[in-house]
Amino acid sequence: MEIIDVENLKTEYFDNENVRKVEKKVLMDPKKAPTFVMRKFILNPRGYILEHTHSWEHEIYVLKGKMLVGSRDGKQEVREGMFIFVEPNEPHSYENPFDEPCEFICVVPKEGER
Amino acid sequence: MEIIDVENLKTEYFDNENVRKVEKKVLMDPKKAPTFVMRKFILNPRGYILEHTHSWEHEIYVLKGKMLVGSRDGKQEVREGMFIFVEPNEPHSYENPFDEPCEFICVVPKEGER
Repeated sequence: MEIIDVENLKTEYFDNENVRKVEKKVLMDPKKAPTFVMRKFILNPRGYILEHTHSWEHEIYVLKGKMLVGSRDGKQEVREGMFIFVEPNEPHSYENPFDEPCEFICVVPKEGER
Repeated sequence: MEIIDVENLKTEYFDNENVRKVEKKVLMDPKKAPTFVMRKFILNPRGYILEHTHSWEHEIYVLKGKMLVGSRDGKQEVREGMFIFVEPNEPHSYENPFDEPCEFICVVPKEGER
């Protein structure tokens, strides 16, 4: 068993053309993960992750705040307590036009986190 | 893409010798899950899940409150914002001797959720 205070984990900060104002923590070491890896993200106000696609799925749980999630169905608002399933190979994007950070858990199969 | 307000999902309530005062929601349909399944649990005050073992791992994120997690290393207190990795085949238990419910996300490979 491993118990980790997520607060103490290293944060990767992304702020580029494609991924703006995003903080990421990898909760599970992908080298030790049997199947999947849990990560935690903060999408700060005015932050975004542009549309992208990959062969693996996401299961997302929104911990705090709200954001817009983009898909073929357009942009939908999600907020604390919501679950999102992004299918393998489904184009998706995230943006936070709101004034509070949006925090969420995002789980991927281990091949999705090198 | 699927977006679900977790509040609206069916709750299974467990209250037996082995699993006391536990609420469970399955966020991802195991029949549609490519790899893994996210679930949400509430371990109510004085609730517990007795020691058990299975061949699959858990990745757990504590959303609210605190609880004791039992393993070979004894009982350890975990609280909001903590991550727990339970290895495959590792005996583990949970109990909530506190006055507030403990809420947590628990992800398993899809074979762990029928």
